[in-house]
Amino acid sequence: MFKIVLLNNSRDKILFSQIMLKTQQTNELNKKLSDQIVTIGGWVQSRRDHGKLIFLDIRDQAGLVQAVASQAVSNEVYKTVKQLNNEDVVLITGEVKARPINLINSKIASGEIEIEVKSLKILAKSRHLPLDLNKTDLSVSLVTVLKHRSLALRHQKTRAIFKVQEQIVKSFREGLADLGFTEIFVPTIVPTATEGGAEVFEVKYYDKKAYLAQSPQLYKQIMVSVFEKVFTVAHAYRAEPSVTTRHLSEYISLDAEMGFVADFQDIMAIVAEVIKKIFSDLNSYCQAELGMFSNSTPQISENIPIIKLSQAQEIIFKRTKRDHRKELDLDPEDEKEICRWAKEEKGSELIFITHYPVPKRPFYTFPDPEDSKLTLSFDLLGRGLEWVTGGQRINDYNQLVTNIKKWGNKPENFKVYLEAFKYGLPPEGGFALGLERITMQILGLKNIREASLFPRDMERVDIKLVKN
Amino acid sequence: MFKIVLLNNSRDKILFSQIMLKTQQTNELNKKLSDQIVTIGGWVQSRRDHGKLIFLDIRDQAGLVQAVASQAVSNEVYKTVKQLNNEDVVLITGEVKARPINLINSKIASGEIEIEVKSLKILAKSRHLPLDLNKTDLSVSLVTVLKHRSLALRHQKTRAIFKVQEQIVKSFREGLADLGFTEIFVPTIVPTATEGGAEVFEVKYYDKKAYLAQSPQLYKQIMVSVFEKVFTVAHAYRAEPSVTTRHLSEYISLDAEMGFVADFQDIMAIVAEVIKKIFSDLNSYCQAELGMFSNSTPQISENIPIIKLSQAQEIIFKRTKRDHRKELDLDPEDEKEICRWAKEEKGSELIFITHYPVPKRPFYTFPDPEDSKLTLSFDLLGRGLEWVTGGQRINDYNQLVTNIKKWGNKPENFKVYLEAFKYGLPPEGGFALGLERITMQILGLKNIREASLFPRDMERVDIKLVKN
Repeated sequence: MFKIVLLNNSRDKILFSQIMLKTQQTNELNKKLSDQIVTIGGWVQSRRDHGKLIFLDIRDQAGLVQAVASQAVSNEVYKTVKQLNNEDVVLITGEVKARPINLINSKIASGEIEIEVKSLKILAKSRHLPLDLNKTDLSVSLVTVLKHRSLALRHQKTRAIFKVQEQIVKSFREGLADLGFTEIFVPTIVPTATEGGAEVFEVKYYDKKAYLAQSPQLYKQIMVSVFEKVFTVAHAYRAEPSVTTRHLSEYISLDAEMGFVADFQDIMAIVAEVIKKIFSDLNSYCQAELGMFSNSTPQISENIPIIKLSQAQEIIFKRTKRDHRKELDLDPEDEKEICRWAKEEKGSELIFITHYPVPKRPFYTFPDPEDSKLTLSFDLLGRGLEWVTGGQRINDYNQLVTNIKKWGNKPENFKVYLEAFKYGLPPEGGFALGLERITMQILGLKNIREASLFPRDMERVDIKLVKN
Repeated sequence: MFKIVLLNNSRDKILFSQIMLKTQQTNELNKKLSDQIVTIGGWVQSRRDHGKLIFLDIRDQAGLVQAVASQAVSNEVYKTVKQLNNEDVVLITGEVKARPINLINSKIASGEIEIEVKSLKILAKSRHLPLDLNKTDLSVSLVTVLKHRSLALRHQKTRAIFKVQEQIVKSFREGLADLGFTEIFVPTIVPTATEGGAEVFEVKYYDKKAYLAQSPQLYKQIMVSVFEKVFTVAHAYRAEPSVTTRHLSEYISLDAEMGFVADFQDIMAIVAEVIKKIFSDLNSYCQAELGMFSNSTPQISENIPIIKLSQAQEIIFKRTKRDHRKELDLDPEDEKEICRWAKEEKGSELIFITHYPVPKRPFYTFPDPEDSKLTLSFDLLGRGLEWVTGGQRINDYNQLVTNIKKWGNKPENFKVYLEAFKYGLPPEGGFALGLERITMQILGLKNIREASLFPRDMERVDIKLVKN
């Protein structure tokens, strides 16, 4: 019977391979292993029959490798291989053969070699495929992609989206941890709507009513009183009553909050730092993935431009004659226009818009000391859409209580939140990034659903739900 | 106006300090800064009046520092300091003074020095405190701790719990990432109960019904077909209809799943590896925090003992004469007894119990080929409680469809899940750790609520909810 071994070093991947079925991942196969016997496992990406030779492309988590079954080597193996279909899962033991220089495939990590199949075991059979995973692009409608979500996720370009997403989160965490932020885990079942508004999902909580958090906002603010600087990767829920290409009913919110800020611009400086780290890491670690998409990471100037909402409206008016100078917010067309301006005039695909009016921001937003109709808030726009939202928060207990009432809520529903301020909380602020939103914007995806493994919207939760 | 600076290096903390109110954290203060002027910020932990001198302990995220206000230096500052209460938030500019050797406080990182206060700004006032944060232990009931959750979280021992928790998650992620696992983000709103049973929260999803995921199980299994080895830090929801010291209604589940396993013991090897890394990292990075609790990380033998459930029941029978050999599971007393045995006989505070009967495991659990009444499943027990649960899963499409029906569910509700198996999924398995549970068990906490920042249970969601 197999013995449990405590690995001595978590980087000891050789030992790890020994306890699994395979000895190598495809990206570990190269000329140095020539003439050695290896065991690889993966999915049949494609099969090409050439008389007495059959070529297989085998896909695993790391990439592709070519395997060759030859009738001359083993007729039995050859016959098994001839029956293989795409997406069958196989375990192949074979000999690593260096390819002649003219046959090296530089597009794949294992392109120096191929595997001569000695034995093959079918681990799982696939049914007939409704999608062709071999195409560079899936080239089917989003409806079809979502209908066959589990299968579509295997396509190399779809996988790439989620490798990029993994890196974005990693960079977000690492960047903030390096700056002394503590990671926290906060609940998603809440007693009341955090951000106000009706767009909140109700939960049947035992024999009572609770809600799904619209954001981790209130909890991250409380935690400033404990750890000063905190971040969290949280699930957030918005009962958006419309179907758009930019909204999900459940999404991942990358949230940070920090105390002892001198000014709300400090918060923007941290946003800029985090965004810059994300771009730089993506360019370092996700080159192959980025290369599959027409977009690259946005161009940013050394200093990301910062303008007030009123200035933005003025600029838009001058450029387009569209007079939105009395509006309380930018509409989608305005957001696109001001991004165009930033790129053309400032060489930056990102721009901060600040000083949004009070009615457009939640109850906890810090009023502008110079104009009480405005707030010390900002959005970071990029490529025509909001990427980040943030600002300074009210940290005075009495002022918060007043605002909660003014916004039509009951202070007793915010007891745990208010306590943090009652016993002293420094000037603070923070920001939030929608993970799927920035994944979409960096890669230039057309619909935010493409950037969510299993997107939730008004119409579906994996399957079409039955009405009550 | 302040200029946004893109920091050149995320480790460039000096620049980071410059854009915030403070110049230093308390743990950065030492003799080398003697006679220099620094600005620190934090909460008044305590004030001690000694005639013309007042001593303050100032607490920030990094620890404590002593500040001294002297009437001789500034009578105005002295008078302000005299009015300070515990938990007031202050910003202090002062001179770093090396302490004479006999006055060095080796218990705190800044113990070589104190700060002579030159100027002081009150950033926020605290009300009268209902808890004494200066005691080594809070020494109040859990009910009181939860009633004043936001304040209680500031206590050093409570903070320590969540620094330990942060490290557990970090080690979990790093350990698995090093072994080639991909991090994924999966939804929590689901169309149907994932693990079966009635303990599921219903969500009013637009005009339809959905549920909160009892675990990320089905999605992590799907993702094995995409990335082979995956992990996720997920929220999980259990509508446990009872109040216990070991269960939460919302908790953090650390989940991993891997394909191409040779045997279900491979999965236990990875569990052992992850647990070992967590313990080792805690001992490296959280010594101060662990030191506040009577427990240390559990003692483990080189090979964690592995026994079948039936063997465990036999051992328990021999030791206690309690005959549970026909039971389908261990009860809480059994779990304690078998842990005692493992410690006494095998020198290990952790033990794997394997081969649970089919009715005690979910529909997707792989049956034991040698005894179809049993499954290839395991629990890792530690210090008398379950830490980890896992096993091999059924990866054959037809077998899964049969089991879904056998468990009383409809295959059409599992369409997205089943598709992953329909198109080929290798032999696979995985495991899950409850974050709050293992935090509690490592630190020896009495109630799992202590290990959750804002615990959710039958009775409260921050506040007592009103009945429908």
